[in-house]
Amino acid sequence: VEPIENEAIRRHSPTLWAALSPLGRRVRYPKDIPFQAAEARGSAFNGTIGQITDGRGAPIPLPLVERALAGLEDADRGAALLYSPVAGLPAVREAWRRWQRRGVPDGLVSGLPLVTVGLTHGLSLAADLFAGEGRAVAVAEPFWGNYRQTFATRTGADLRSAPAYRDGAYNPLFVEEALADLPDGEPALAIVNLPSNPGGYSPVSAERRDLVASLAREAERRPLVVICDDAYSGLVYEVGVPAESLFWSLIDLHPALVPIKVDGATKELSLFGGRVGFLTFPFAADSEVAQALDSKVMCLLRATLGSPVATAQIVLLQALREEGVAAEVETVRTRLAARYRVLRTALGKLDGSKVRALPFNSGCFALLELSPEIDAERVRRHLLAEHDTGLVALGGRYLRIAFCSVRKEDLPELVRRIVRGVAEVASAGSLERAGSR
Amino acid sequence: VEPIENEAIRRHSPTLWAALSPLGRRVRYPKDIPFQAAEARGSAFNGTIGQITDGRGAPIPLPLVERALAGLEDADRGAALLYSPVAGLPAVREAWRRWQRRGVPDGLVSGLPLVTVGLTHGLSLAADLFAGEGRAVAVAEPFWGNYRQTFATRTGADLRSAPAYRDGAYNPLFVEEALADLPDGEPALAIVNLPSNPGGYSPVSAERRDLVASLAREAERRPLVVICDDAYSGLVYEVGVPAESLFWSLIDLHPALVPIKVDGATKELSLFGGRVGFLTFPFAADSEVAQALDSKVMCLLRATLGSPVATAQIVLLQALREEGVAAEVETVRTRLAARYRVLRTALGKLDGSKVRALPFNSGCFALLELSPEIDAERVRRHLLAEHDTGLVALGGRYLRIAFCSVRKEDLPELVRRIVRGVAEVASAGSLERAGSR
Repeated sequence: VEPIENEAIRRHSPTLWAALSPLGRRVRYPKDIPFQAAEARGSAFNGTIGQITDGRGAPIPLPLVERALAGLEDADRGAALLYSPVAGLPAVREAWRRWQRRGVPDGLVSGLPLVTVGLTHGLSLAADLFAGEGRAVAVAEPFWGNYRQTFATRTGADLRSAPAYRDGAYNPLFVEEALADLPDGEPALAIVNLPSNPGGYSPVSAERRDLVASLAREAERRPLVVICDDAYSGLVYEVGVPAESLFWSLIDLHPALVPIKVDGATKELSLFGGRVGFLTFPFAADSEVAQALDSKVMCLLRATLGSPVATAQIVLLQALREEGVAAEVETVRTRLAARYRVLRTALGKLDGSKVRALPFNSGCFALLELSPEIDAERVRRHLLAEHDTGLVALGGRYLRIAFCSVRKEDLPELVRRIVRGVAEVASAGSLERAGSR
Repeated sequence: VEPIENEAIRRHSPTLWAALSPLGRRVRYPKDIPFQAAEARGSAFNGTIGQITDGRGAPIPLPLVERALAGLEDADRGAALLYSPVAGLPAVREAWRRWQRRGVPDGLVSGLPLVTVGLTHGLSLAADLFAGEGRAVAVAEPFWGNYRQTFATRTGADLRSAPAYRDGAYNPLFVEEALADLPDGEPALAIVNLPSNPGGYSPVSAERRDLVASLAREAERRPLVVICDDAYSGLVYEVGVPAESLFWSLIDLHPALVPIKVDGATKELSLFGGRVGFLTFPFAADSEVAQALDSKVMCLLRATLGSPVATAQIVLLQALREEGVAAEVETVRTRLAARYRVLRTALGKLDGSKVRALPFNSGCFALLELSPEIDAERVRRHLLAEHDTGLVALGGRYLRIAFCSVRKEDLPELVRRIVRGVAEVASAGSLERAGSR
């Protein structure tokens, strides 16, 4: 039997319908326990739900657990200890919607975010809905390696990449290039991650215009779902670089383009251990299409996790409902901006012969590109063994520096060690090549 | 390229190898960021990981978030705010292992539990590893409806059920019966959930012996992976009913039978909002086969969630590392046992003509069976509309009472309302049938 939700999606968004995976087409939220429990909320006698309560809706926590959450007020502690609704706590969803939409014009329509267990979970829900065997997914190379597990390994999708940089500059046409060989009409996904991981880059205004225009052109060719991976949203350090999510620029851009926003508290609110993310569609919360998509996401969420984490949602809510949260977030951004400037200066002194810094201006990372004869993994191991310095090696010729986890005053020395380490590996490589001749 | 982990599994457990799904065979933990970050732990300069820290491994939380976790000591608060390792925090894994193994002989080998985001997540990881298109999964009918989403809807597995009860008594042969038509040699999964949901039943000693013998016979026919869904572990209210997990009885029972334990803090430690579950294999933690399985689970976990929730793990750890935790858990069990006795007495007075209680002795639920002419969903709606009473309707003829969320003193009135409501629906049904003649 086809889920009734499919008809609403087909009618309201033929683009999404074309792009749904086989799994995405067959899921719908079942009318089982959480559904029936939601109907029974407020009954005098409520024996629906298998959580241990005092019989009046309050938890019966272990005193040792309660003590750990003593920083919360009673009502919040109660909510933190009981099941969250499958779509997330309504107060958290509303608060995050307000947070997302700071400065966004009312005319740009977006739904009530669904709570996920971290950003990756939002991506994996999007993958379940829209990826699947053979589905093309456009990414910029180098990309965050976990896209491979989430989209390709799990669902069988076909990651297609194009260079994120060309001649040392950002390439805003990577989606069109990555999908150039895909036949017209075949649906595709694109992942656009800004500020980027591993690049630490956000396009400047002209590049962003080119990126948006390129996505619109691609939507002339096919139904296109653009996943805006906004993990590092707001962490922009240069004046004049647009800091608002690309999601808002893509809403209503083209009928065959549907943007999806994946964001969360992990980096935006510096709450790494909490794993609270969100998935947002560009449809009004009370619309049929939004409700159909909610039903599908909730089915997938229930099938994999039961419900999202109430404890972490409440910790986040404590912050989101206070006026001062934006100022506290700005304090973190300012601290990272200071590290960014120190690192930019230190990397500006590289002579570029063996290693050069790709442009970066935002997020948590800077990306170094090595000369083709130098292997990044070898440099990584050498830096670890000989220079007590840990970096991430990617794609054979890149090294990623996570300046978000290094002290400002350590960054110049970090760069000096990298320069020394690269030189040592390069000269060992030259000797080997000479020896093997 | 075939993952090197497969060779270890093939060699050490041909049963598991035969039972692995196509996805289970292709996953292995990638050597990307978390792997490289783990290698760099302790470096003087560590720029591997994209979490915002002070550069010395401590978080930079928003003060508003920190305040919410003021009940934690500084070191714990730090850990609660930063990423957990993908397999879970080592201290939590060790503490849960000790908790699981209370009273278990040293000779029964089990591994270090992997942390999951709630029990359902452990089930979904097992589904990804061992289910998939067409794979037979034996369940007792009625079963927790979410097994359908987790195993069938998501992975395409074939749920095969046999009655959980026969003539009003527990049926310990349900796995053999459910798989009777499956050709010999074809691998299968079985889910055994004790205490059961929705039944609230744990087999008495003789039934348990029959269940174990039946599983061993089934393993004569095929590679059999038995998922022990231990969500309600320990919540047993009658003397003489075995309370220890079936997992321990299945270890080393038969070479073609591999038990997997899925458990967690949700019900066992009354921590519903935290979503901390565990997945445990019957192999020594340092064995090759355990490490190969860990690699696969960690790949799946990283692909769907990035990492498990540190905040909730720390809240749980606060309890697990104290001596008093067992006594606190016993206090909750005693409180539920008192409700159980009141409900048992009230249900014992049913005349059984229209509704009868199936045997129950443990867990969170009691299950009522209606006469065949009475529709459970209709009774559910009637009880909600006319008697302000919420129950869960299942499988057409069952009503589940979650006594874990009803006050002891309310249970007799709850049963009276059920009796009245069932009688009203039955007589309306008789009238309709008379009218339609």
